[in-house]
Amino acid sequence: MSLSIFGVQGIGEVPPHTDIAHLIVEALLLPVNADEIGPLRDHDVLVITHKIVSKAEGAIRPSADIESRKAIVEEEAESIIRRRGDLIVARTQHGFICANAGVDNSNVEPGYVVLLPRDPDASAHKIRMRIERTSNVSIGVVITDTFGRPWRRGLTDVAIGISGLPSLVDYRGTVDTFGMELEVTEIAVADEIASAADLVMGKADGVPAAVVRGMRLAGSGRAQDLVRPAQEDMFR
Amino acid sequence: MSLSIFGVQGIGEVPPHTDIAHLIVEALLLPVNADEIGPLRDHDVLVITHKIVSKAEGAIRPSADIESRKAIVEEEAESIIRRRGDLIVARTQHGFICANAGVDNSNVEPGYVVLLPRDPDASAHKIRMRIERTSNVSIGVVITDTFGRPWRRGLTDVAIGISGLPSLVDYRGTVDTFGMELEVTEIAVADEIASAADLVMGKADGVPAAVVRGMRLAGSGRAQDLVRPAQEDMFR
Repeated sequence: MSLSIFGVQGIGEVPPHTDIAHLIVEALLLPVNADEIGPLRDHDVLVITHKIVSKAEGAIRPSADIESRKAIVEEEAESIIRRRGDLIVARTQHGFICANAGVDNSNVEPGYVVLLPRDPDASAHKIRMRIERTSNVSIGVVITDTFGRPWRRGLTDVAIGISGLPSLVDYRGTVDTFGMELEVTEIAVADEIASAADLVMGKADGVPAAVVRGMRLAGSGRAQDLVRPAQEDMFR
Repeated sequence: MSLSIFGVQGIGEVPPHTDIAHLIVEALLLPVNADEIGPLRDHDVLVITHKIVSKAEGAIRPSADIESRKAIVEEEAESIIRRRGDLIVARTQHGFICANAGVDNSNVEPGYVVLLPRDPDASAHKIRMRIERTSNVSIGVVITDTFGRPWRRGLTDVAIGISGLPSLVDYRGTVDTFGMELEVTEIAVADEIASAADLVMGKADGVPAAVVRGMRLAGSGRAQDLVRPAQEDMFR
């Protein structure tokens, strides 16, 4: 029982209208990747940081100063959850709760900010369809962002777009090693995959994609499944 | 840039006073593990679910019914954060905020519950020291538990004990691909490792440990570093 995680190197800057599926398949042919990773295989999960997806989809905005950035954050936010100094924790139109409604000015040309993709599940689906058709494999795709969380310091990568794999794996009804039925053990497997992939991607290294090889996951879900409905949420 | 994650198989039930370091080193010699994983190497991170550590340390309690379990939860809780029906979200004496103050009745003999280890950072340190001395390698050790989180559905594994690797990696001051200084990008790398390892451990499969190979992390931290101080926390 093992898996391998490979960072995809050699992906350069991504201009608007880039075909991300093509970009990654081509990158995998580069010698730096080809020897270690080789072509995509059935069951591989391709993990992509949302930033290159957003750029390819044109989800960037000019933002000359902090004031204009703030205005963009307010626009992207469906509601503001908390505000402290310059930090805004907001609920995005997708339902994600994160800093600055996902508006970010790192790893983007100076004078611009990157937004989240409009519909990251759809983006993941589109990329998966295109790769599966051109490469004749059956894969999963996860689009990630880096979120903070209450109670625990530090950020972790989570899934904001999913296609071709489950978002949650439900162990309820399965039995533990003592034959007792497990109660509530619904694992956010797509978030765990996002975090795992981040271990080889880093934040400043120009590695915006990774291949997770060795997972055997049945079913399919959406990152929308990971959004906890307000009525279930005790912390809002 | 790649890493491998191996589940350690063949670890049976863990009675009190078990030497966990010895148990794992012995398990790695089993044919089922030896071929794929081999002996531990420098920089390997050994990830262990807290449940076997708690059992080895005797952190289990008899609990015949829901009422006695509730009493144990109240005892383990330093404070109750939220209560809804039977669900208690509590702050443990370690500062972790989780369901039932970490008291769990899965994968334990019927009639008992498992608590969190008293000092999981110390447990991780002790296991690491013992393995490093007997096996002459320099490794990291992460002890994990499965926590829920606000806003997002599903549970993920997080680090509750750490030795020999950093808890957080701080990218502040490093520059992105455009030469811009990254702002607040402190990554909870030990939590990401815990989540990554869970992908090969499952919840019901009797795989309570994993080896993460290929990380090159400098520094050392404690899981205590991951506890967000109350005054920084906007969600309590």
